[in-house]
Amino acid sequence: MSLFLQVVSVSTAIEEIRNLAVRRGDETVNLVDALHRILAEDIRADGDIPGFTRSVVDGYAVRAADTTGSSDTIPSIFPLRGRVSMGVSAGTHIKSGECIYVPTGGILPEGADAVVMIEHAEPIGKEILVKKPVAHGENVLFFNEDFSSGDIVCKRGRRLSPQDIGVLAAAGCIDVPVVGIPKVGILSTGNELVPVNVRPLPGQVRDVNSFVVASFVREQGCAPVFYGIVPDDREALRSALDNAASKCDAVLISGGSSKDDRDMVAAIIKEEGTVLIHGIAISPGKPTIIGRYGNIPVIGLPGHPASAFIVLVAIIRYLFAGMTGNTDSGLRSVQASLGQNVSSSKGREDYVRVVVRDGVVTPLFGKSGLLNTLVKSTGVIRIPAESEGLETGTLVEVIVW
Amino acid sequence: MSLFLQVVSVSTAIEEIRNLAVRRGDETVNLVDALHRILAEDIRADGDIPGFTRSVVDGYAVRAADTTGSSDTIPSIFPLRGRVSMGVSAGTHIKSGECIYVPTGGILPEGADAVVMIEHAEPIGKEILVKKPVAHGENVLFFNEDFSSGDIVCKRGRRLSPQDIGVLAAAGCIDVPVVGIPKVGILSTGNELVPVNVRPLPGQVRDVNSFVVASFVREQGCAPVFYGIVPDDREALRSALDNAASKCDAVLISGGSSKDDRDMVAAIIKEEGTVLIHGIAISPGKPTIIGRYGNIPVIGLPGHPASAFIVLVAIIRYLFAGMTGNTDSGLRSVQASLGQNVSSSKGREDYVRVVVRDGVVTPLFGKSGLLNTLVKSTGVIRIPAESEGLETGTLVEVIVW
Repeated sequence: MSLFLQVVSVSTAIEEIRNLAVRRGDETVNLVDALHRILAEDIRADGDIPGFTRSVVDGYAVRAADTTGSSDTIPSIFPLRGRVSMGVSAGTHIKSGECIYVPTGGILPEGADAVVMIEHAEPIGKEILVKKPVAHGENVLFFNEDFSSGDIVCKRGRRLSPQDIGVLAAAGCIDVPVVGIPKVGILSTGNELVPVNVRPLPGQVRDVNSFVVASFVREQGCAPVFYGIVPDDREALRSALDNAASKCDAVLISGGSSKDDRDMVAAIIKEEGTVLIHGIAISPGKPTIIGRYGNIPVIGLPGHPASAFIVLVAIIRYLFAGMTGNTDSGLRSVQASLGQNVSSSKGREDYVRVVVRDGVVTPLFGKSGLLNTLVKSTGVIRIPAESEGLETGTLVEVIVW
Repeated sequence: MSLFLQVVSVSTAIEEIRNLAVRRGDETVNLVDALHRILAEDIRADGDIPGFTRSVVDGYAVRAADTTGSSDTIPSIFPLRGRVSMGVSAGTHIKSGECIYVPTGGILPEGADAVVMIEHAEPIGKEILVKKPVAHGENVLFFNEDFSSGDIVCKRGRRLSPQDIGVLAAAGCIDVPVVGIPKVGILSTGNELVPVNVRPLPGQVRDVNSFVVASFVREQGCAPVFYGIVPDDREALRSALDNAASKCDAVLISGGSSKDDRDMVAAIIKEEGTVLIHGIAISPGKPTIIGRYGNIPVIGLPGHPASAFIVLVAIIRYLFAGMTGNTDSGLRSVQASLGQNVSSSKGREDYVRVVVRDGVVTPLFGKSGLLNTLVKSTGVIRIPAESEGLETGTLVEVIVW
């Protein structure tokens, strides 16, 4: 093993990891369980939406042209020809100059093309005074105005939001084809690690990474599978990795933070597969390994939780997106203006934690290994490898947690 | 019942709904299940983090002052006094001019205050050439630099992110006190409604609202409980509401979209409680009811899914936040510049769907009852009640879905 890592750029790492990702097979879930799942197929409306022309207010169905010029002082007068009940057709046509009462959601009588809200009308005996003109289509949703039968209402690859669930319901899609949930094995290595419920002695640290990594994995729509803390021992690690790889769709090994440990992780991967990348020009997070073990992706994450988290956010998320079939990387970002100069080393992408408040981005300076700035920050800004820093006032993209 | 609704402002509605919300009791969950739960108590570090001064790189522990002036051409020479193993103290002090190898995560030897990365050093026999100066604290995390024992690492009311889970792990918090998950009963009323798996006849519509509302409720950290479609019949609705109210922490009735149906819902609520608000100056979503039934909050949502959704986003979310104890409303927003004029009616808050792309906000014009613009939009902008519209170039806050 060489002394120095042969680092690759962040974009190269993302490209490799995208190639590694194999989309999980599909399954069908009930619509009530489909929230936040990734849609596996385009869904089409099984009929016209709406299926009939309906009023969206309580009011009087009219021909819009008949209301031209109506006002509070000079209202138009419409004979009332009846009332529509919910779910039932009026059974009669509207002729020019007539009106029919229709409740919100009721079928618009034939002949009518707009509805005057009750707030703009006044019943006088069997006649209605209309005090405001309406335009063609006003207060009405026309037959198939929202979707026509056969239209795609929701595209494959979409992570289903409450609104998406709504259009699936409207389209009659109760059994929803979604991508299966990939299983991601999580191992931590390091002789210095102790379980979270143990109080660390000097030199020891708690296994924070298992929890951070598992939480991120879950947030990205995968199911974490814990394989615990494995000692820095070649046989133990090899056997734990074999076990995890046989049961999961991908394995993340965190730790192996020192050069010797990283080299051991890389050597074990090489026995059953390939180390594609060992070292990325990113700060924090340089000592990252991307490889293939048998036929599944295996990632060696930095041992320090703050570094591991940045690598997950910046790079490994694309693995999860690929596996879940999410067409969106799940990266949320906002643009805002930098409130202070930020310097950076040329030759590596720097991820600097920031707080965004009132459209102004304030960097949280301090060591990248600190957890407290990770928790206080709104997100990170990326300083490109070719840049030596960014000046106050620069419009930057903030990757929001 | 009067013909017109006595509308209140959106801010009044939010205030009322905040007063209605009763925080659910606490429970304890394991750290592996705590993601996205609301923390019920401040959590403090059970020890110093880190518990010892450690290196964050592979390198040579030194006294920083000894490296002053070191360069590639004129390196400083340090005798190597040994190696630190992971999890074990060096057992020796560093004196001025000496160095000790320390791996990433290893205990910094006493006397040292910085680490020179191996990339900036060169071993020559038993001596190390240092080619770059380091500052005090460089490449080191000091004892308790992240958190001191007893510091609050995570505050009550926070919705736990993966990073938060990480600091809880570091602080030894394996049993996490969180707010219990409120149960929210969901009823749909309307004789025109049919279940989603039924193909609607003319005049009928599918019960989209149950799914949209349940999904939103779930996204806000509550557990939806379905009570199905209830006919527009006073006895049936009364009995369904009694049942839901006896088992849930809040009930949302959607539908009752026409004036007659709304009045019936309001009348039933009054039998066992109070109607606090009947009508809000918001578009879409005016015919919303906020009340108390027995001692639990009850909400009458507009019948049209697109309107119901806007009311959930703009107003009812504060009920869920209050019940879950979330100190954040869960409202995500970005600031961006309006790409087109938008007009609005004075006297009501208008929620206009928009797409945000490259920092420019483009309104999606069209009827508020359409589902397709709800799905295509990035979010909504709010046009205040006192405004008649917003001009191109105005910096607006976009509530992002």
